[in-house]
Amino acid sequence: MIVEWEETTDLGPTLPNGFRSAGVRCGLKTEGNDLALIVADRLSAAAGVYTTNQVRASCVDWSRAVTSAGWARAIVCNAGNANACNGASGAQDTETMASIAAEELGIDVRQALVASTGVIGHRLPVDKLRIGIPAAVTALGAGPESDMAAARAIITTDLRPKMLGIRYRSDASPEGVSIGGICKGSGMIAPNMATMLCFLTTDADIAPRDLQHALATAVAQTFNRMTVDGDTSTNDMTLILASGVDANPLRPDRAPYTDFVEALTRVCRYLAREVARDGEGATKLVDVHVRGANTEAEAETVARTIAQSPLVKTALFGSDPNWGRILAAAGRAGVPMDPSRVRVLLGDLPVCEAGSSIPFDRDAAHAYLKGSEVTITVDLGSGSAEAVVWTCDFSYDYVRINAEYHT
Amino acid sequence: MIVEWEETTDLGPTLPNGFRSAGVRCGLKTEGNDLALIVADRLSAAAGVYTTNQVRASCVDWSRAVTSAGWARAIVCNAGNANACNGASGAQDTETMASIAAEELGIDVRQALVASTGVIGHRLPVDKLRIGIPAAVTALGAGPESDMAAARAIITTDLRPKMLGIRYRSDASPEGVSIGGICKGSGMIAPNMATMLCFLTTDADIAPRDLQHALATAVAQTFNRMTVDGDTSTNDMTLILASGVDANPLRPDRAPYTDFVEALTRVCRYLAREVARDGEGATKLVDVHVRGANTEAEAETVARTIAQSPLVKTALFGSDPNWGRILAAAGRAGVPMDPSRVRVLLGDLPVCEAGSSIPFDRDAAHAYLKGSEVTITVDLGSGSAEAVVWTCDFSYDYVRINAEYHT
Repeated sequence: MIVEWEETTDLGPTLPNGFRSAGVRCGLKTEGNDLALIVADRLSAAAGVYTTNQVRASCVDWSRAVTSAGWARAIVCNAGNANACNGASGAQDTETMASIAAEELGIDVRQALVASTGVIGHRLPVDKLRIGIPAAVTALGAGPESDMAAARAIITTDLRPKMLGIRYRSDASPEGVSIGGICKGSGMIAPNMATMLCFLTTDADIAPRDLQHALATAVAQTFNRMTVDGDTSTNDMTLILASGVDANPLRPDRAPYTDFVEALTRVCRYLAREVARDGEGATKLVDVHVRGANTEAEAETVARTIAQSPLVKTALFGSDPNWGRILAAAGRAGVPMDPSRVRVLLGDLPVCEAGSSIPFDRDAAHAYLKGSEVTITVDLGSGSAEAVVWTCDFSYDYVRINAEYHT
Repeated sequence: MIVEWEETTDLGPTLPNGFRSAGVRCGLKTEGNDLALIVADRLSAAAGVYTTNQVRASCVDWSRAVTSAGWARAIVCNAGNANACNGASGAQDTETMASIAAEELGIDVRQALVASTGVIGHRLPVDKLRIGIPAAVTALGAGPESDMAAARAIITTDLRPKMLGIRYRSDASPEGVSIGGICKGSGMIAPNMATMLCFLTTDADIAPRDLQHALATAVAQTFNRMTVDGDTSTNDMTLILASGVDANPLRPDRAPYTDFVEALTRVCRYLAREVARDGEGATKLVDVHVRGANTEAEAETVARTIAQSPLVKTALFGSDPNWGRILAAAGRAGVPMDPSRVRVLLGDLPVCEAGSSIPFDRDAAHAYLKGSEVTITVDLGSGSAEAVVWTCDFSYDYVRINAEYHT
């Protein structure tokens, strides 16, 4: 059981001891930093979860090969060019990017993870990376400034960088474990830009296979339960490096491991909600909570269908207590349900009982929906399983951001 | 084979001989006609295809029972109130609506089909129907004015009524068969208003079971391949009445029946495309054509995923030749594909070959996408199956219509 939880981001570095970071500008975006580097002082267990899109960038294949082998020293990431849909030359450019980083850092090229985000179908300007990557290596530091520079260097249409560092102690890990992460994403694919990326680091001592299992568990409950527009990117990836600086080795099915998975899930949940909150054009963060389902998978399916409904999302933008749209979205989710048992709440306010309208205070509901964080609860009235999916509302700005962009 | 095809809407009545129609105002919408009636002079074979949403209005259950029995005399439809999510009192109000129509027309209540569209979760004001339905019976007529009045009386957020009457002759049916239809729908559920409704009539002589088969075949290829926002309504229905005035009985698997299915499909395709063209906030009609698939079902799934992608739809609003979004949507459709064989065309212009970017005339592509009708073609380069899904773009007005509405 976790007994102490401290957010280190507020105090100093986001990344744990044993990791350094940098963010620099190399000219791939029209402005701002666009090249990030995270380096582990020693060879670290590595794990990754990748896009399920069949159309995927070459960096996904490259990094998957690295995490399959289980060990890495560095993550190099550029923003502004996804290097996706570029065929064989795209794969070559990814390898070149890894090679430049490996050479500058004096590590094995097969221990350099690569991520890219940005426009699809344009060749990666490798010449810019030949200047940018050495500059990033020079800029490497351990502290809040370099962590923030790295977090800023991976964003595209995001309005803010997203980062969290924590340190927890538990009964099973009294000496403490640190986890740090930076994350980006605003549309699943924004103006042909965007992609969900998350880079996590920890000082935990954990074998690659166990780390992969821990990451997959955390991602399934967090990033995979977040949706801005339902469009999965060609470049999505979540990576984690575990340096093993922590003395207490984590073995599966023992208390320290369980605590680590819980802590990792909490960090991912925070970052996933930050992505939804900063969704393209979003004015509010929405928690869609489905309970009373027969299975967690069914609860998740219903919650996801509600969270992706354009009609629900536009009603939320208008702060309208339009429970009919919520119920109609639930009804088309493909999950067997008895509409006459369904209950809908906006925050704590019941607005629909037994699948039918009930009198409620419309002004109070409207005022609640005008807030920056909103919870929709749908109780299917059947079993005891539940799930939460995070999303945002659907505004004029979503259309503006995605229609005004020209490739 | 159909050898002659005449659109009767331009010449006179939309509905075939043997049908009368009316559209009147009874005060359910804030303005305009909101009560439609279609009456067959004689007992007609009846068939229906209904919403798959588990949350469905009582009129769906009522009309399904009528078409299951196979015979009907009338369709009564109100706009402005969906009478959905109203529990037992909703079911009672649907039966009352059928009873009033049956009494006024002197027919069996079990031969009166009922449809409703509009706001969810508000009691149907039956008192207004007690005045409106007799007024509609008085207004019944056979001709272009009453058909247009009926078509106008079923719309909600639609900008225009949708109707088509045709008469065809074929080798197998030299004496000719007429089909007429009126249709509405703009969002699958618009401002808690909308719903896709289509009422078809024909003078063909066809048994109820065969009529049901013909209708299901036509709807699968047309209305079920059209999407505005992916939100299926609680009240969707397509109904058809066949009066049998035509002398030549249609039997399955014979040429006259095959011709009838083809003609019915053509009528439904026209109406489905009119619904997509008039989608909420739409500035253009989009045909998403997927070919080179292994099965038609796979082609349809890929086309539907592209047609429902908010990123594709906002790019279309911006007339941006953003083929990367099209390819990324195809890649997440859940259909096995080899991205390196995929080809994308905008109109006749190839913009992506072998899953990679190719040089193309961006100004020409942009100009093409500014048109009011656009075709996207994705060739998966695998099999020979294909499918088309119709949709519209995603504009500021979609957000305005659906966010500014307050329940």
